[in-house]
Amino acid sequence: MEKLRAAMVLFDRFELLDACGPLEMFGQLQSKVDMTTTAMATGPIRSAQGPALLADTALSELRELDILLIPGGIGRLRAENDPAILAEIKRLAEAAAHVGTICTGASILAHTGLLDGLSATTNKRAFESVRDNVPKVNWVPQARWVEDGKFFTSAGVSAGMDMALALIAKLFGQNCAVEVARIAEYQWHSSPEWDPFAEAADLV
Amino acid sequence: MEKLRAAMVLFDRFELLDACGPLEMFGQLQSKVDMTTTAMATGPIRSAQGPALLADTALSELRELDILLIPGGIGRLRAENDPAILAEIKRLAEAAAHVGTICTGASILAHTGLLDGLSATTNKRAFESVRDNVPKVNWVPQARWVEDGKFFTSAGVSAGMDMALALIAKLFGQNCAVEVARIAEYQWHSSPEWDPFAEAADLV
Repeated sequence: MEKLRAAMVLFDRFELLDACGPLEMFGQLQSKVDMTTTAMATGPIRSAQGPALLADTALSELRELDILLIPGGIGRLRAENDPAILAEIKRLAEAAAHVGTICTGASILAHTGLLDGLSATTNKRAFESVRDNVPKVNWVPQARWVEDGKFFTSAGVSAGMDMALALIAKLFGQNCAVEVARIAEYQWHSSPEWDPFAEAADLV
Repeated sequence: MEKLRAAMVLFDRFELLDACGPLEMFGQLQSKVDMTTTAMATGPIRSAQGPALLADTALSELRELDILLIPGGIGRLRAENDPAILAEIKRLAEAAAHVGTICTGASILAHTGLLDGLSATTNKRAFESVRDNVPKVNWVPQARWVEDGKFFTSAGVSAGMDMALALIAKLFGQNCAVEVARIAEYQWHSSPEWDPFAEAADLV
């Protein structure tokens, strides 16, 4: 079987675990998925937490992907107001077979218009401002992740790992996802309805 | 209060989430902790999962740290047989107030001799080979992490996030750790005895 082509988008001040949680899970499947990190230009991209991840591929070099992943983080505020990166993300998200967002990555994707009329979720602390800024999306306050068509949008930060495993389950079967979680000694919350953080954030 | 000085050691083919899980948690505390990534030389260090993290500081530049963190990953097999990096890790671990290892990072640290006679844990899948290779350590098969003196050693990969939060609780109080976990929408396993993976790996 040909490997799936996948990419994780990076931008200045992305949230480190938003990107690295899913990259860890997909990184266990290098025989099945060819994952790259991508940004407007190749080179080090500094996370909101301080450490920098290397972008290995320029966004402009990418064509039709099987999986496009978009993290959030404080830097999304600049990204979602940057027409150049939004245009690249829209182009790739339209063409991709599956699109996953982590945390406020959903807000970036929503700014392309591709989530209009669809259900999605995002980070709890940013929930109300994201909902108010992009009202054409049906924002779901309590969900670990939301699947609507080809779009998987996860709640904040750590939820990206659960969403990534759900996407792995969809692509390669439930047993594969369970095995990836076991190798990572990760307690997978395999139900999208598991979400104690909505209540903690007074969203329900 | 002066910021604590902390460093995460990187080496070729480190496990991505071993490093980035704790870096995310400590990255929420940039007003309290000055964290750097460090390796034998500065520059990109490729993880076992593919993506590269930038090492911002050379190991030789570091002096007395408050917190030294050491990840595992398949690359540890080379690191623990490399006298140059072992000497740097031993020097920094001896001088550090707190030392945390993630996954098979415990095996690297054990190769310095600093865990001799102490209790520690490590990755489940590597458990038996690590125990056999470094028999002077009291290896604990079932534990999310083990605290013995200044050493916090965690089980595999994701366990590093629970250990990092335990170290944050020790340094800054339980409420601080709970808040960091909440911001990351991470379900902290706050008991070191929580470890369903030992049974899954036939270690108990």
